[in-house]
Formats: sequence, C-alpha cells, structure tokens
Amino acid sequence: MSVRVGVIGGGQLARMMIPAAVNLGLEIRVLAENEGSSAQLAATQVGDYHDPQTVLEFASTVDVVTFDHEHVPESILRQLVARGHAVHPGPDALQFAQDKIRMRQRLGELGVAMPEWAAVTSEDELAEFLEAHGGEAVLKTARGGYDGKGVRVIRDAAEAADWLRILDEDANGGALLVEELVDFRRELAQLVARRPSGQVALWPVVETVQRGGVCSEVFAPAPGASERLAQVAASIATLIAEELGVTGVLAVELFETTDDRLLVNELAMRPHNSGHWSLDGSLTSQFEQHLRAVLDLPLGATDVRAPWSVMVNVLGGPDSGSLTDTYGAALADQPTVKVHTYGKAPRPGRKVGHVTAVSDDLDDAVFRARSVAALLGSDL
Amino acid sequence: MSVRVGVIGGGQLARMMIPAAVNLGLEIRVLAENEGSSAQLAATQVGDYHDPQTVLEFASTVDVVTFDHEHVPESILRQLVARGHAVHPGPDALQFAQDKIRMRQRLGELGVAMPEWAAVTSEDELAEFLEAHGGEAVLKTARGGYDGKGVRVIRDAAEAADWLRILDEDANGGALLVEELVDFRRELAQLVARRPSGQVALWPVVETVQRGGVCSEVFAPAPGASERLAQVAASIATLIAEELGVTGVLAVELFETTDDRLLVNELAMRPHNSGHWSLDGSLTSQFEQHLRAVLDLPLGATDVRAPWSVMVNVLGGPDSGSLTDTYGAALADQPTVKVHTYGKAPRPGRKVGHVTAVSDDLDDAVFRARSVAALLGSDL
Repeated sequence: MSVRVGVIGGGQLARMMIPAAVNLGLEIRVLAENEGSSAQLAATQVGDYHDPQTVLEFASTVDVVTFDHEHVPESILRQLVARGHAVHPGPDALQFAQDKIRMRQRLGELGVAMPEWAAVTSEDELAEFLEAHGGEAVLKTARGGYDGKGVRVIRDAAEAADWLRILDEDANGGALLVEELVDFRRELAQLVARRPSGQVALWPVVETVQRGGVCSEVFAPAPGASERLAQVAASIATLIAEELGVTGVLAVELFETTDDRLLVNELAMRPHNSGHWSLDGSLTSQFEQHLRAVLDLPLGATDVRAPWSVMVNVLGGPDSGSLTDTYGAALADQPTVKVHTYGKAPRPGRKVGHVTAVSDDLDDAVFRARSVAALLGSDL
Repeated sequence: MSVRVGVIGGGQLARMMIPAAVNLGLEIRVLAENEGSSAQLAATQVGDYHDPQTVLEFASTVDVVTFDHEHVPESILRQLVARGHAVHPGPDALQFAQDKIRMRQRLGELGVAMPEWAAVTSEDELAEFLEAHGGEAVLKTARGGYDGKGVRVIRDAAEAADWLRILDEDANGGALLVEELVDFRRELAQLVARRPSGQVALWPVVETVQRGGVCSEVFAPAPGASERLAQVAASIATLIAEELGVTGVLAVELFETTDDRLLVNELAMRPHNSGHWSLDGSLTSQFEQHLRAVLDLPLGATDVRAPWSVMVNVLGGPDSGSLTDTYGAALADQPTVKVHTYGKAPRPGRKVGHVTAVSDDLDDAVFRARSVAALLGSDL
C-alpha cells in the first residue's frame, strides 16, 4: 500500500505537492477549508482545522501530517503528537513560526543576527522604541500575519491603538512585535529541508522582490551573491533548522543590509513562495523535498538545472474570467516559460499562479518571465 | 471554470498527465477500468470503455476526450464525434494506430520506408512470404498488441496456426500482418506533438532498448545520431502526424538498419514510453505537450534540460511489497536521479515505474539510472 501523506490546508502549496506525490508514488490526502480549493484534486476531507475532532479524524487516515500553512492551533498539534501521529514539522518547531515574538526570543538565544526588536503591550512602550530608533519602526502582530497582513510601518505610537485594543480585548497577555526599520539593500531567502533523522539539504540563496508586502519576483541564485554571503545564509538556515528541530522545508527570509550584514526577517516552516522556482530550476523541487523530508526519506539533490531561474508571481489579473482567457497568448509568446496556475478565482493582488523562466542569461530569464506574467494579466 | 480534460484509461500514462494538468490549471478526469488504477487520484468514473453508454456518459462530463491507450473501439469514437464531442486524437487518425495493416497500407501510400510486409489470412500465404524472406519473419496480430504481446518471430507457417484459427473463428475478415525480420543496428523513436490547428513540435530522436519486446531503456538524444539522421526521423514523424491527422503526441518507432536506412516499425498516438525522459530532460514533457495539443493550446518548447537524459524502466520487482521497501536505499544512493512510480502492484516484467538521470556525460547518466533501477528491484 502506498504511504499516505496528509496535508492540512488546501491552498496552492498543497496543490503543488500533488505532482511530487504522484511522481514519488505517494498517496496525498488534503484537509481543505472548503470545496473548490486549490488542492481540490487531492482533498479527501473538508473541514475547519481549528476543530480538534476534524483534525484528529483527518490524521487517522494518513501516515504523516504536514501543512499548507502554519495556522493549526498549537494545542491541536500537541494532541496529535500525544496520540502518536507523526506531525512534521511538529509543534515544538512550529510554535516559532506561529508566534513572531517567540521566534525573536529563540533566535536571540541562538545568537542569530536580527533587526533590533521589542515586545510591546502599550503605546508608551512603543513610543519608547520609536524614540530609540529614529522615529519609525515596523509593527507586527505576533500571530496570524502573512503576505504583508499584520505588518505596518508606524511613525507614531498612536497608530498602533487599534491593534493594542484588540490585544487588550483578547486578554491573553499578548504583545505586539516592534522592529527597527532595517536599511536593507535587498531581501534574500534561504531554503533548507531537514529530515527528522537529521539530513539537511539547501538550495542556493535567492533574491526576493516584494511589492506591497507580497512576493512579486524571485531570482535564483541571488545575483552577485558572494560565496561568503551564500555560506552565511546557508549556515544561518542550517542552524535554525537544527536548533528549532524543523522537519520539512524551512524558509528563512533575510535582509541584506547596506552595511553587508544578513538579518533574519521571518521564518516559514513549509514550502515557500521564494522556492517556487525550484519546480523548474532545481533537480529537486521544494515540494518533492518537503514530502521526502516529512517521510524521513533521503533528500534529493538540489543542483540547479540552469544558471538562472526567475520566478514571477501572477497576482490578481482581470476581475472576470480565469487565466485561460489570456492563456493562449501567453503560452504562444514564450514557449520556454513554465506556467503554474493555482485554480483560484482572481481577485486584485491575489496570488493565482506563477511563471518561471530558466536561462544561461539572467536578463533573458527576467524578460521572458515578466512577459508571460504580464500577458496573463498580472497586477504588476 | 477550469477546462476539463477527460482521459479514457487509468494507466500510468493517464497518471503522468496529472502533474501537467495541475501545473497548467486544467481539471483532469479519468475513466478508469477499475478501482485502484494508476490514475486513481483523477478517476471520476470507473467503467468499461467497450461500453458506448459508459464512454458517452464520461464524455459529457469533460471538454475534450483523450486517451491513455488506443483500445477504445472505433465505432464508439465515431459516436462521440457525431455527437459533437472533441476527441483527440480522433478516430480518423486512431484507426491507423489500432490496426497495423491499415497503418502499413496508409504509410505505403505516403511513401514512408517500412519493412517489407504482407497481410496474410492462411498458412499458404505465410509460407510464401517466409520463402521470399529467408525463411523467417515477424508475425503480428493487426489489433490489440502492445509491449511485445501479439508479436512473434516465426520460421514455419505452422507456427501461426493458433492465431489464424482465432481469425477464422472471428469470421471478421481479419488478417495477420507479416513483416521481414529487419537487420537493424538499433531502434529509435521520434516523438512529435501536433495541435488540431496544425502546429507541430518535436523532441530529439531517441534510442530505445527493448528486452523481451518491452522497452527497457531510452537514451535521449540517440547517441551518435548524425544531423541527417535526426532530420530524416523528424521529417518522417511530421509527415505521418500531418497526413494521418494526428492530434496530441505521436510516437514513431523506427529501425535504424545496418545499411543506414530508417524504417517505420510501429506508431502510437499518445504519450509513449520512449518519451518519459522528457519529464525530467525537456523543458516541456510529452504529458504537458499532449494536454496542450489536445486543447489546441500553443505548444511548449522542447529544448533539452541537459545534454543527455537516460530513462530506465522499473520492471516487476520483488513479488511481495511495494517499491517503498527498497525506496530509501535507492534514493540515498543516487540523489540526482528522478524516480517515477506508477502505483501498480509489482508482477514479473510489469512496468511499475521508471527513473531518469540527466547529465553532461552519457556514461554517467547511464550508470546512475541503472543503479537506481537495480536498487528498486527491477527485473533487468
């Protein structure tokens, strides 16, 4: 009988695990939030991942549980583990992806370089941090943020009133995370996969371009990255994966500062937008590697298939109709570019697909990938 | 709404269309012969493709009908077309893949080089052919053969008695196909994809190695193939695709004779074992290209991803247990080799998967691919 991998969450990350599961001969089962999810093809159950019974029921139908997102409540994850289910990444690791303040604390203990930060619970504490950091800072909710949600730049403590009030009402002792506004040259991401038994594999560090807090483009490897920079990024990601006990794919988002330091921005413990290029640009994609890792199978080689891979997200697109309206024109224009669509209805700014161009020449790959994304109607 | 592609047949070819459909954002639906087929994940109906009602019902749930195999009766295909269903390849083309005598007749009209052949209905006619061709020949049933089934080498007309008796009992006016035993250096295959609107795309001609009538290994491109040989193979396949009106992928199996001619052996109008390397070795796999072609979408680029790709089939394997028993050892031994399994129970000689190695060096790719196939327990 095939090994059954269960994925909680029916988004595009679960969807993109399907081809890898088909190739590897695994059975993939998805607990989706609703009918018609991106991962519909593999959805064996529809339900609310906040409900312990739903998640326990799903877990009993698979050999290992993994995730499309990091939002399953920690208490439910701990119940799964207590009942003997294999959960990768497990709650001991996931807590640091779920709570940015815990993440900052833990990375601090490990001596990892980060933006200066503080946990604040009042406008006074926030004002103090602002004063000490040039009058501006990045404010983040500790939990639940993604794609720029739960993140804002503030210049006055009063701007945090609404979030502080919610924390207050929650009465859960929560705090907001405030961080210095880093003077960075660009953003990078280092992906690593780690098996429960310890093997790790890394892809080259990549450059990520964000627009409005959402990943827009990825260049792999990061153009002009020195060997030293690549080594530092790899060692930071390896340290975090090992010390936090991450299993599966870990994405470490980094700032490359104008004074040549690498600071850890965010962590994601799952396949990540910054690794989508690997579907076409690496011998082993992040999705295949994630499945291998969570099953504790030997990891695949992460060699690049071409000197350069450029991934461009397809965001939003025309309000009416699906990608297929403009599909033919895009495919005809760039027959070498690989198109990935997520089966999602377009909304302004929503990630509905991505395209990847590989090439011996970076500019050529950038041009071709951007052309297709534009023809597909991306809100670039 | 997504475009819905319907595949009749739930074998590994349908299975390997699933990842391509996921990437392209298509909905794939499979009419499988039984529960637990290779393409189970996309099976929306289980039934007998010999039954017109079953096939018509399935066709009504999809936008285009295509195939995992060539065995759907021509009469049913013609009913689908008459009712306005898009069927690719259509019956006008498929008849030549379904009946080897019709294929030989049609290729003869096109002036395509082939082995000498005859349609025979009696031992006397067969004896005459044998006498004219050095006392030995290849005998084939006109319909229903694959993977060496329905093919035998004979040296005496009496060896055909059983097959002739069946034809006799069928009373359908059928005949057997007899062909000269070609003195060939090696076997090649040329794959081409063609859209209904006419665009064609070709992969490089490949060398195929058969063992016991079953494809065992494929080297892409065919080692040492001259530019002229590649051009001749491409022009033969293009001519056949165009003149026979093939839509989707067409595989043309060729003999490279010891006196440097290319003779057409067999045709297959679907993705083909000789094209599995393209999943890892070409920018566009034969499965993605087939889906693009049957939907009349612009075809993808067929550039190779590496100078050499070597595919080795995994045949049979241990009687008990699945591939996963030996999986870890194989993956650990060759992290650069891509493994594809078909979700089929192993039986001696049965194709249960394949592996592909890509490399700048042919010998290196051969070594690595064979190593993994052996570790997976292939009956090589």
